Amino acid sequence: MKIVSTLRLPEQCMQLLKGNQIIEGDLSEVSDADVLMGWPNELSSIVRSSSKLKAIQTFSAGVEALDFRAVPESVKVFSNAGAYAVPVAEHAWALVLALAKRVGRKDRGESYVVTGKTLLVLGAGGIGSEVARIGKAAFSMITIGISRSFKRPEFFDERYPYTEVDNHLGRADVIVNALPLTRQTEGFLNWERLSKVKEKSIIVNVGRGETVERDALVRLLMERPTVRFGTDVFWRKDGEENFQDPLWEAENFTGTPHTAGGYANREVLEHAKLAACENVRRFVETGRAENEVRREDYLT
Amino acid sequence: MKIVSTLRLPEQCMQLLKGNQIIEGDLSEVSDADVLMGWPNELSSIVRSSSKLKAIQTFSAGVEALDFRAVPESVKVFSNAGAYAVPVAEHAWALVLALAKRVGRKDRGESYVVTGKTLLVLGAGGIGSEVARIGKAAFSMITIGISRSFKRPEFFDERYPYTEVDNHLGRADVIVNALPLTRQTEGFLNWERLSKVKEKSIIVNVGRGETVERDALVRLLMERPTVRFGTDVFWRKDGEENFQDPLWEAENFTGTPHTAGGYANREVLEHAKLAACENVRRFVETGRAENEVRREDYLT
Repeated sequence: MKIVSTLRLPEQCMQLLKGNQIIEGDLSEVSDADVLMGWPNELSSIVRSSSKLKAIQTFSAGVEALDFRAVPESVKVFSNAGAYAVPVAEHAWALVLALAKRVGRKDRGESYVVTGKTLLVLGAGGIGSEVARIGKAAFSMITIGISRSFKRPEFFDERYPYTEVDNHLGRADVIVNALPLTRQTEGFLNWERLSKVKEKSIIVNVGRGETVERDALVRLLMERPTVRFGTDVFWRKDGEENFQDPLWEAENFTGTPHTAGGYANREVLEHAKLAACENVRRFVETGRAENEVRREDYLT
Repeated sequence: MKIVSTLRLPEQCMQLLKGNQIIEGDLSEVSDADVLMGWPNELSSIVRSSSKLKAIQTFSAGVEALDFRAVPESVKVFSNAGAYAVPVAEHAWALVLALAKRVGRKDRGESYVVTGKTLLVLGAGGIGSEVARIGKAAFSMITIGISRSFKRPEFFDERYPYTEVDNHLGRADVIVNALPLTRQTEGFLNWERLSKVKEKSIIVNVGRGETVERDALVRLLMERPTVRFGTDVFWRKDGEENFQDPLWEAENFTGTPHTAGGYANREVLEHAKLAACENVRRFVETGRAENEVRREDYLT
């Protein structure tokens, strides 16, 4: 098959995909490509030029930036879900613990303890499962998962579908949101749900900004100063994530500008490219692969 | 025995120490006390008034603020080492991960990953052992301990005495300093040692400020911008920890104002008082207890 990647691929990928024609970085070659590899936003603009296309493999875990209207139904789309599970789960814990301990603040305020407490994870794919694993292994937490499917069910003491989230939000001391942005998850944490959280709870978002209703969150942080919120992902404004959110001024807020996926970290990117190549190999050899995206989750 | 505590004790302590005379908060009773319980700085001023005194039990883990010249040689001193291991180890990880992920900074910079890397722990008592346990369990790290004694040797892949620290500082991606302040540890991390650390290493201090030479650290952070340093403990100025250190301005610095021991957290304080009571019970029943302090480590 002819595989066109928008980025250079590590040497190990070449070994994995031996026997195929691999083009790196030369987009003049896309017209007869069988497989395209790239970031979702790049792919949106080139996918229409590929008439023979069979599959798309993204380097990113999230695919909501892919323009699904441009992708023919015959083309399979594979995300790179799980490839960033380790760095993003570390990042989620960095935000949780930084909020618990008020890291970076010169004034003294209450230090929260997480050991032995209850952890609620929204979205139990690769990232959410790794977050739960750390909660158990490092801090002996009771772990509750809210998810459509569970990648590693063994890391969750309790497992529930999305529809039951309302019964469990009020039980959690720590809530980690690792939801992808789909039609079902947009605005998932609305006022009705956010208003249920405990005093002194910590909420962290490493999913997508729009899974949380911003106005409801602002109200929560203003009205309930003991609740602390941290996020790596922000709400889009004119199509771009707006990292200059006024929330930064709040005492009970901390954040990072979408760097959880190993920003500027070569090691993480190489690992993610390799995971993408492994999945492309599966597709080339068997016609099937991991992380196939359901179009109906995204098409509106 | 007559036990005088400067603070109120939890109900469970009363049960533990049943059969003894327990005085809480009334310092007019210290003259014929057998055991004094309190914070080191409080005890320094009242210990001379107790003529029958057999033992001192501190609520704090560190005892360097106790004036040992005021304590007769016949009086045993017991610290509360280990009582804060869980909150302080969580705090150490909060600082490590916040530095790795640059939590709280709006600008983007390299995200470091800790999983699979090498962790060096200075001081392997209750806190250092718990830090190592988390490094292993949560992040599959290789753990190296530098210590006089090891409370939980099983959490360390390699164990060395203080004298061998120079051979191992350059191997670590993450260094956590949990050293108490004694005659041996003052200025332990001097320029000669700090200059050995790796590029992109993370150094965290949850021991005592003075175990790190401030000038050497400032030089390190200026000359080596990829090295990141976080601390909960600061250098004393006129006898008080100076939390307003100019280091806060540095890009590769973060901190907390000595809040690791569960600042303003009732749960942590109650737990620490209970641990102190359990140790006093050991002393009352057997004449011996845990965490006996060696005077020669402190007397100058």
